[in-house]
Amino acid sequence: MTATDRRLQRGERTRTAALDAAMALATEVGLDGLSLNQLAQRLGVSKSALFAHWPDKQALQLATVERARRQWAGEIVAPALAHPPGVRRLWALHEARIAYYRRATLPGGCFFAKVGFEYGLRPGPVRDRIVEILNEWRRLLTQTVAEAVATGELAPVSAEQFAFEIDAMAVAAVYQARLRDPARVYEQARCATLARLIPLCTDPSLLPEE
Amino acid sequence: MTATDRRLQRGERTRTAALDAAMALATEVGLDGLSLNQLAQRLGVSKSALFAHWPDKQALQLATVERARRQWAGEIVAPALAHPPGVRRLWALHEARIAYYRRATLPGGCFFAKVGFEYGLRPGPVRDRIVEILNEWRRLLTQTVAEAVATGELAPVSAEQFAFEIDAMAVAAVYQARLRDPARVYEQARCATLARLIPLCTDPSLLPEE
Repeated sequence: MTATDRRLQRGERTRTAALDAAMALATEVGLDGLSLNQLAQRLGVSKSALFAHWPDKQALQLATVERARRQWAGEIVAPALAHPPGVRRLWALHEARIAYYRRATLPGGCFFAKVGFEYGLRPGPVRDRIVEILNEWRRLLTQTVAEAVATGELAPVSAEQFAFEIDAMAVAAVYQARLRDPARVYEQARCATLARLIPLCTDPSLLPEE
Repeated sequence: MTATDRRLQRGERTRTAALDAAMALATEVGLDGLSLNQLAQRLGVSKSALFAHWPDKQALQLATVERARRQWAGEIVAPALAHPPGVRRLWALHEARIAYYRRATLPGGCFFAKVGFEYGLRPGPVRDRIVEILNEWRRLLTQTVAEAVATGELAPVSAEQFAFEIDAMAVAAVYQARLRDPARVYEQARCATLARLIPLCTDPSLLPEE
């Protein structure tokens, strides 16, 4: 391995560590509260080491959004897609999300809930990208409901409306989880969705018993 | 009216105008983003005129939280309490909330959703007061569900669980309303709750037809 290879490898490690820290920090102080200064301090590196990767705050914010999207894809979407299209995949999508929140992978619980509230009134490239990612998520959830209906495992429902309802339980849970007993909140979000699915599901064995 | 009366009256007007501006601003920049400086600028008054009311930022934040609580009580709770206990009051509570969000009384939609996400990880008197107010709201919603069951107008449900679900629709709606078409989002939140209530309601005439 040459000196250049080692330098590149070290740079890549700094980049990944910085984005992980930025993602976590954004769920505490917001994405606009992020500064290269603060991030350098938290990581114990120089500010110039970070400048090598992101010329300005907006570049760092956009890279952090992509990092959060990748985490969401890995922790929530991928395990659900391991199930065939149908009720099991739909349930897995919700349950993986609640489990991810429950593990408190990020201190503030949910990157997209936090920054969605933060950027609602801030037009620009960061908000545009957040909106795209949320639309992508809603499309996936809606399509998963539609597939569950198409397989005959779920009684006919409006896929978009049903996706809104399932999503709402998770958003409300992550909102409340830092203001009251999180275990209770996540249990309510899990039960609420299961209670909606059970009467619509044509094969009870596809869902957990409680 | 004496000069002292006039001065007191002017002071009270400044106080109310300042809290209304602070409440609106907090839904844009957050409650921690509020500064007496910025507020004085927005109102066109001197910073010392504001210092007469609030010695520091935290005193202003706490007063702003109380102002928001009063607005919520006036716009959402009061109209619902005009109905007798039962399904109509429960529905009115949700519908008044969605209507309030739809009117965009506050630029960011919901003071408590915004600051709830902001203060989840910030212990102190501001967070404590926000938690108290949210608990008060959840108790009211839960009690309203329990009363609707007690009157026989609503089939037996777990009041706390059902209150969580109704609340979730509104939280999710105000979250999404600044990231996609608000009219569509509010309609989905309204339909979701109505669709949950209709099959449980023993007298269909108590609810709107659609």
